[in-house]
Amino acid sequence: MIEGIFFDISGVLLDGAELLPNADKAINYIEEKNLPYRLITNTSQQPRSKIVKQLQDAGINILEEHVYTAPLAAKDYVLSHNLRPYCLIHRGLKSEFSDVVQNDPNAVIIGDAADDFNYANLNHAFRLCLEGAPLIAIGHNKYFKKSGDFFMDAGPFVEAIEYACDIEAVITGKPSVDFFSQVLASIQIKAEQVALIGDDIYGDIQGAINAGLESRLVRTGKYRDGDENKTKPKAIVVNDVLAAVEDLL
Amino acid sequence: MIEGIFFDISGVLLDGAELLPNADKAINYIEEKNLPYRLITNTSQQPRSKIVKQLQDAGINILEEHVYTAPLAAKDYVLSHNLRPYCLIHRGLKSEFSDVVQNDPNAVIIGDAADDFNYANLNHAFRLCLEGAPLIAIGHNKYFKKSGDFFMDAGPFVEAIEYACDIEAVITGKPSVDFFSQVLASIQIKAEQVALIGDDIYGDIQGAINAGLESRLVRTGKYRDGDENKTKPKAIVVNDVLAAVEDLL
Repeated sequence: MIEGIFFDISGVLLDGAELLPNADKAINYIEEKNLPYRLITNTSQQPRSKIVKQLQDAGINILEEHVYTAPLAAKDYVLSHNLRPYCLIHRGLKSEFSDVVQNDPNAVIIGDAADDFNYANLNHAFRLCLEGAPLIAIGHNKYFKKSGDFFMDAGPFVEAIEYACDIEAVITGKPSVDFFSQVLASIQIKAEQVALIGDDIYGDIQGAINAGLESRLVRTGKYRDGDENKTKPKAIVVNDVLAAVEDLL
Repeated sequence: MIEGIFFDISGVLLDGAELLPNADKAINYIEEKNLPYRLITNTSQQPRSKIVKQLQDAGINILEEHVYTAPLAAKDYVLSHNLRPYCLIHRGLKSEFSDVVQNDPNAVIIGDAADDFNYANLNHAFRLCLEGAPLIAIGHNKYFKKSGDFFMDAGPFVEAIEYACDIEAVITGKPSVDFFSQVLASIQIKAEQVALIGDDIYGDIQGAINAGLESRLVRTGKYRDGDENKTKPKAIVVNDVLAAVEDLL
């Protein structure tokens, strides 16, 4: 019996800034059923306030409290550990960290930095970690799809620095079980009564499986034929987010 | 009984273009003993011809046949497999591949591309591999030291693309056992009678151990305190390349 739903955003509700077909209907449907839900995302190109505005502009009327982001989890981590991070993150996200001390860094936060993933910046992060700075990763996704093209996400760059320095990153956001636990706590429903709907077989579906959630893989976003066979048990795949909601309830 | 010696170049014989202390004496010593030797390197910033000239300019008088490079092993691989590589390699190395067909690529060669490791180039390599192109790596080193600074080597970027695409790269150069076998064949001496002298605990020493060679770790180059404890069995560490040669013979 599903009593709460987590939605991934990019590739499930939105394609870039555009609404994906039936995404508004899916949210309306569970709003009408009065079911608790959260939109959880590793998207690290903009602060939560902008994500909420983008969803509202696209026709999905949600509040800030409905949205959990991996960057906010990373921010919580450095604040609670008194760390001064070098932030190798997307320019659009910098404002989310404007109130965090960043001079004389003793930690590295790495997110989807896009064009700022260059050799100079990566070496800077690598040298800090080689000297012992902890590496905090905003998500561990392999890649994402945007306007028809595939792009490397933060995950591969996290792997690169982990390998270079023989360290293990603290992963915030999906697929971290800690992150799922945090979001579950906010709606006070047990894992097995919550389902996640996502387009990323690793970050979303494998993450949900590891955290004990139900899940549905959608054929939108970054989905590629055969992705459903990459998890154990195999993912249940449906056409889009509305089909997922209908299948679950 | 050691009957042949392999030398790493960068950090063992040279620091950048400069001769490291006693490096010329070490080579002269084994030349006088008439012992077969090879200089083997993953350095992928220049063609073999320039490496040889650089060594000669620094005062080490060797011939092209003494030098085995990872880029040449990668080139052999794509030629023997009829592949057309996209070469994400250092600008200084491009001339080594000038006679290899590279249009409409169906493979990726990745080396220490330095500043050409940018998001656009990495995404290009990633997309080819996502579509099934094999990834051929020039070495798998974690990092190198140059003029007092540490720099990420090709290895971390190989890891990044392997993780992004769920593939495994073909590694040419150290620490590939195939590469060591190839160099051993050229001097016709058994692995257990050959020793490798290197400054990289992974690429050199662990590689030598895996291939059945003796080895000595030098405290020059990228050596960092405690590196010798990172292999099983522990590496034997000496001050420099001359001490290594004297210790071995």
